[in-house]
Amino acid sequence: MKTMKIIITAGGISEKIDGVRKITNSGTGRLGSLTAEELVRRGGDRIEKIYYVCAPGSAVPRADAEVIPVQGAEEANTVLERLLTRENIGAVIHSMAVSDYAVDRVTTAENLAGFLADRLSSADRQEFRSTRALAEFLLECINRNDRLLDRSRKVSSELDHMLLMMRRTPKLIGLVKALRPSAVLVGFKLLKGVDRQTLLNAGHEVMKKNSCDLVLANDQTEISGDRHVGYLLSPDGSFERYETKAEISAGIAGRVLSLLEKRERQ
Amino acid sequence: MKTMKIIITAGGISEKIDGVRKITNSGTGRLGSLTAEELVRRGGDRIEKIYYVCAPGSAVPRADAEVIPVQGAEEANTVLERLLTRENIGAVIHSMAVSDYAVDRVTTAENLAGFLADRLSSADRQEFRSTRALAEFLLECINRNDRLLDRSRKVSSELDHMLLMMRRTPKLIGLVKALRPSAVLVGFKLLKGVDRQTLLNAGHEVMKKNSCDLVLANDQTEISGDRHVGYLLSPDGSFERYETKAEISAGIAGRVLSLLEKRERQ
Repeated sequence: MKTMKIIITAGGISEKIDGVRKITNSGTGRLGSLTAEELVRRGGDRIEKIYYVCAPGSAVPRADAEVIPVQGAEEANTVLERLLTRENIGAVIHSMAVSDYAVDRVTTAENLAGFLADRLSSADRQEFRSTRALAEFLLECINRNDRLLDRSRKVSSELDHMLLMMRRTPKLIGLVKALRPSAVLVGFKLLKGVDRQTLLNAGHEVMKKNSCDLVLANDQTEISGDRHVGYLLSPDGSFERYETKAEISAGIAGRVLSLLEKRERQ
Repeated sequence: MKTMKIIITAGGISEKIDGVRKITNSGTGRLGSLTAEELVRRGGDRIEKIYYVCAPGSAVPRADAEVIPVQGAEEANTVLERLLTRENIGAVIHSMAVSDYAVDRVTTAENLAGFLADRLSSADRQEFRSTRALAEFLLECINRNDRLLDRSRKVSSELDHMLLMMRRTPKLIGLVKALRPSAVLVGFKLLKGVDRQTLLNAGHEVMKKNSCDLVLANDQTEISGDRHVGYLLSPDGSFERYETKAEISAGIAGRVLSLLEKRERQ
């Protein structure tokens, strides 16, 4: 087998609200760091390099890896894009918990109400023949509201009705096959408090949507301390069930290495 | 000096958005844990007990202290209230970074626009003689919007315009003198990127509002690694400037112990 470079993303990424507040995703980086260690242990010389892209403060592997801390989904996106384009990446294990939403704008209910009232007052009332037309007008106004608070410092602690208007962050996983179709891709799906079938279905949906080679589906309620139940799904619908982070990381590392070998033989 | 019990609050407290997302405040607990260690070192037998109320995962003192982890400002409030009422607390050092806001409701711009459109359509248009009256009506509607997302699990990752409606959390510091007027109270004020005079003024405002005996005013931009600039303000307008967490915690511990001795002599 030729030597190869692997990207592991890990940890819970934060998104800034203002100068001192942020939104974080649950995620310690422990599973990602264990997977890096397993890959090095099993892959030996075949692993040329591991890029470990993580949230600041995440667990990092006790193995040779280039640790790249990133602030926010948009920075993670930039780093992944650069690595996938410039480096010969054989596999991506995307265990990072990325905020699906970043804070777009910060306002108050008072500011928003004032803005909407001004827009309604100056609009031609005849336009709103139906409640639906009115709702569409209001939606556009809500999304254009420009009476915002300054987020570069710390937003006042004294507001009665602060509103955070969120935008979706880029889906990092979508980059992998778009930029490097040959790479082995392991996706992750975390839900909370759902039954097993719902979890497996959601995992398969992630797999299909992003052309993953494997998906680890897990439920927050089944993760505590050393216990970590995870289902490693294959495209054919089969899966392995694991009960600890050690089992999961060994399972992922083993499967990724054998997929890489198989690809090379083809 | 009689033996005494001291509460130290520390770390950055989180507020849940949904089953897996949360809002966190910057804060490691390092300053609080160092202060606990200094108090034990300097106070010796005079310290009967330290209650260390902290965010889960915070730094904890390498000294004898009862560590009480709390999730969210409301739980911190309950714990402080209990301790202040039941225990003979001599001093409170409130270094915890508490979210000023908790997530009250989660909705989307679409849901809110639909709700507002329905309310406007069914309202008597004659009511809105002025833009101001309309704004007041809309404000009430925004705050009553009941088209909400289920936050007990994980809110969908696919929403275009998620809105977080926040409410203010209880001001923990206000509890101290209300429940135990004789306690020595050290408040903290953190701002970001302001000039020194603005920072000192804000610190004095916290002192006045909460009847603090001391306030540590600091600026996020002057905190990195070991460097931590802090101004320990006294009610007479004087202050000490410190440059590291070790200096700050030593300064606070020394001043708190001497204030406690002075009170006892009176």
